[in-house]
Amino acid sequence: MKRILSLLIFLIIANVSAQSDAEMLKTIYTQSLTNGKSYSWLDYLSNQIGGRLSGSLSAERAVAYTKEELDSLGLDKVWLQPVMVPKWVRGNKEYAFLESSSGSTSTVNICALGGSIATPIGGLKAAVIEVQGIEEMKALGKEAVSGKIVFFNRAMQPEIIQTFEAYGGCADQRYSGAMEAGKLGAVGVIVRSLNLRLDDFPHTGSMTYGNLPISQRIPSAAISTNDAEKLSTMLTLDKNTKFFFNQTCRQLDDVESHNVIGEITGSEFPNEYIIVGGHLDSWDLGDGSHDDGAGVVQSMDVLRLLKESGYKPKRSIRVVLFMNEENGLRGALKYAEVAKQKGENHIFSLESDSGGFTPRGFDFECDDAFMTKIEGWKNLFKPYLIHHFEKGYSGADVAPLKTANNVSAGLRPDSQRYFDHHHAATDLFEHVNKRELELGAATMASLVYLIDKYGI
Amino acid sequence: MKRILSLLIFLIIANVSAQSDAEMLKTIYTQSLTNGKSYSWLDYLSNQIGGRLSGSLSAERAVAYTKEELDSLGLDKVWLQPVMVPKWVRGNKEYAFLESSSGSTSTVNICALGGSIATPIGGLKAAVIEVQGIEEMKALGKEAVSGKIVFFNRAMQPEIIQTFEAYGGCADQRYSGAMEAGKLGAVGVIVRSLNLRLDDFPHTGSMTYGNLPISQRIPSAAISTNDAEKLSTMLTLDKNTKFFFNQTCRQLDDVESHNVIGEITGSEFPNEYIIVGGHLDSWDLGDGSHDDGAGVVQSMDVLRLLKESGYKPKRSIRVVLFMNEENGLRGALKYAEVAKQKGENHIFSLESDSGGFTPRGFDFECDDAFMTKIEGWKNLFKPYLIHHFEKGYSGADVAPLKTANNVSAGLRPDSQRYFDHHHAATDLFEHVNKRELELGAATMASLVYLIDKYGI
Repeated sequence: MKRILSLLIFLIIANVSAQSDAEMLKTIYTQSLTNGKSYSWLDYLSNQIGGRLSGSLSAERAVAYTKEELDSLGLDKVWLQPVMVPKWVRGNKEYAFLESSSGSTSTVNICALGGSIATPIGGLKAAVIEVQGIEEMKALGKEAVSGKIVFFNRAMQPEIIQTFEAYGGCADQRYSGAMEAGKLGAVGVIVRSLNLRLDDFPHTGSMTYGNLPISQRIPSAAISTNDAEKLSTMLTLDKNTKFFFNQTCRQLDDVESHNVIGEITGSEFPNEYIIVGGHLDSWDLGDGSHDDGAGVVQSMDVLRLLKESGYKPKRSIRVVLFMNEENGLRGALKYAEVAKQKGENHIFSLESDSGGFTPRGFDFECDDAFMTKIEGWKNLFKPYLIHHFEKGYSGADVAPLKTANNVSAGLRPDSQRYFDHHHAATDLFEHVNKRELELGAATMASLVYLIDKYGI
Repeated sequence: MKRILSLLIFLIIANVSAQSDAEMLKTIYTQSLTNGKSYSWLDYLSNQIGGRLSGSLSAERAVAYTKEELDSLGLDKVWLQPVMVPKWVRGNKEYAFLESSSGSTSTVNICALGGSIATPIGGLKAAVIEVQGIEEMKALGKEAVSGKIVFFNRAMQPEIIQTFEAYGGCADQRYSGAMEAGKLGAVGVIVRSLNLRLDDFPHTGSMTYGNLPISQRIPSAAISTNDAEKLSTMLTLDKNTKFFFNQTCRQLDDVESHNVIGEITGSEFPNEYIIVGGHLDSWDLGDGSHDDGAGVVQSMDVLRLLKESGYKPKRSIRVVLFMNEENGLRGALKYAEVAKQKGENHIFSLESDSGGFTPRGFDFECDDAFMTKIEGWKNLFKPYLIHHFEKGYSGADVAPLKTANNVSAGLRPDSQRYFDHHHAATDLFEHVNKRELELGAATMASLVYLIDKYGI
C-alpha cells in the first residue's frame, strides 16, 4: 500500500511537472513569436553593419552593438573577452575569364577563397586540368598538373537529404585543394562553389596551405556553379581552353578582437554553466544573415526569453558570441581555454550555426543515458513540430568545450535552402523569415530551460 | 511447429518486403532530386504563363500546356474534362487613399477581393468604422455601420504554430465580411490582408454575397498589413479619417474550361482509383507558383516518378489538375460528379495545395484502422525527415470524393512562409526552392506507391 501510495504521489508530481513544462514551453514560444527580439537584432546586424570578416571594422562594430544590446537586457554580467584573430582582406573584386584556343574570351564569376594568396600582379593565365577531387589529381601526378590551373569540379550530391552531408562530401577540395595542387606544381586552383543550385554566385570559404613552403603556395578561388558547368563544357569542346584570374587578397598581421559574453548567474549551482552561442564573424560577400547572424540573435534571445518568461535558472546560463569561427576558430579556442583556467564546469553547450530556417530539432554529442532523457522530452516539443533528436555533430564553436562528462548540441534547422546562401553574396537578411528565426530561438530556449531544470 | 514455421515465413516475407519498400522510396527520392521534372514544369507555368484566374486566357494556356506535358509521359490515358467556370475580372489596378479631417491624403495598397463588385464609377469615399470581426460589427448595429466603410482588422495570430490554423481564424472576415456589412447598410468593406508579415502587398481571395439582393451588395477589398496598421493608427488619432477606393472588377458570364487528367491504368484492380492532384487555376496578382503551381507539377511528377522507378501499379493512378479551386470549386465538383456517374471506386485521394515548401508529412481523413497502417509506414519515411502523420483536413479539391469507406489526404509542407505569398503579388517562382518542391513530389509518390501496393 505504501509503495502504491508513493508511486501515486510520484505519478502526480511527474504529471504536474510535465504540465508545467508544457506551459513553460508554450510561454517561451508565444513570447518569441509575438514579442521576439531576434529579427530586429538581425535586421541591424545585417543591414546596418553587414558582412563581418574577422579583423574588419564591421566585425568590431558587431562586437560593440551586441554588447550594448546584451547590456540592455538586465543580465547579471556582460563582458568582452579579448582574442587575437587573423585578418585576411579580399582586396579588389576578383576578375576571371575563359579563353578558347582561338582566342575568344568569356568572363566568369569567381571569388577568392578565404586565406588564399593573390595572383601575381596583373593576374594569372594557364591551361586547365579538370578533376573530380584531390585523389584523382594525385593519380594524374606532377607531370599532368605542373604549370596548370587545377579545376576541382566535384558537385554536391543532390540525392543526399541532409545537405550538410552533401557539403561534407565536397569541402575537402575547397579546404585542401590548393595545398595539394601546390605540391604538384600547379599554378592556381579553381573550385566549384559548394552550392546545390545552379546560379551565378561564387561561394567563398576557408582554405589552408598547411606547412607548405611559401614558394609552393598558389592562389585559389571559387567559381559559380553555372560557370563551373560552362568551364567543364568548354574543356570538353576545346581542351586547350585557358583560364585567367586576378585577385589581390592578402593575409595581414593578427589583430585583437573579442568574444561577447552575457550571463544569468545560477541561483543553486552558479559554477555549472550552460552556454548557448553562435559566431559573430561572417564572410564578406553577403551580410552574413544565415551564417551566422541568425545563430547570434537567436542565442541572445534565449536569455531574454527565459528572463521574460519569469524563469530563474538554477545554473549559470551564458550567451557566447564567438569571434572568428569562419577562418580560425580563435574565439572558441580562447573561450574554452579561459573556462578551463577558471575551472568552470560547462555541463551543456548549444550552438546555432546552420541557418535561420524552420527548426527541426537537435543533434547531440552525449552518452546513451542523456539520449534516454531526451526521449522523455520529445512529447513536449511535438506541438512545435520539433521531431529530430539524434546523436550527431554539435558544432565547431562548442567542440573545444566537449569532455567525456558533458553534453554539446547543435540546432538543426531545415537544411534544404542553406547552401543557396552559404558564404555567398546571397546570404542576405531578406532570405531569413521572421517566424522561422523566432521558432529557432524558442526551440533553443526550451531545451536550455529543460536542461537547467533537470540537469544532464 | 507448423505455426512457428508459418510465422517465420511471414516474418521473412515482411522483412524482405520492408527492405524492398525502403529501396523503392530511395529510388523515388533519388529520381526526384536528381532527375525531377517538377521545377522546370513550374518554371514554364509561372514564368511563361503566369497567374491563371479561372476563365482567363492564361488558365486555358495552362490547360493546354499541362495536357501536352502529360501526353509526353507515355501514360495510358490523358484527357480534358469540360467544366463551366465563373469568370471574374479585376479590371484596372485598384486605387485607394486615406483622407484626414484636415483634408491631407495618403495612398494605401489595396486589391479587390475575388468576386467583389466594383465601386461606383470614380470611386467611393466614406467614414470608416474599424472592427475586429463580424460579431463585433453586428453588436455595433445598423446605426453605427450604415453609410460607412467597415474595416475588418483582425490579424492572424502569430503564436499559432501551424499557420493554416491562424488563417482559418481570420478568413471569415474576408469571405463573409461584405455580405454581413451589406445587410447593415455599409457602403464598402476593407479587410486586413491574411498575411503574418508586415509588408506592403495586399492579399486577395474569394468572398461571397450569398443570396443578398443586388441592392445590398457592396465592394470589398484587401489592404496590405502595413497599411492596415496605418489606417488603424490614423483612426485612433483622427476618428473622422475617411477612406477612398476605386475598383472596376466585375463578374462575367460563366465560360467553359477543363480539368486535366492523366492515368496509369491498374494491372489488377483497374476500377480502384488512386488520385493525386492540385489546382491549375490561381489568383492573378502573382504567378501562382506556391498556390498551386507547386501542387500541379508535384502531382504530375508523381506519375512520372512511379513510371521512371519501374513500378507497375495494381490500381489505376490518376493525376487530376483541378480547375477553379480558388473561386468556385467547379472542377472538383465536376470530377466527383463524373466519377460517381461512372461508378469509379476512388479509394484514395491526395491533394497538394499548401505550397511547395519542405514536406513534413500528411493529414488524413480516414478511420483508425488506416492510421494504424500509416503508423507501420512511418519508419520508411524517417530518412526523408517526414514525421507528420495526423488526422486532419485533406483539401478542398478532394473533399467531394470523400466517402465513409475511402481515405483522403493532404500533403503538409512547412507552413511558416506560406502566407507571405498566398494570393499576393509575392507568390512568385523565385520563392520556390527546387529541392523542397522535389522532396514534396517524392513524398507524395512514396505514399501513393505504398497505398497502391498495400491498399487502404
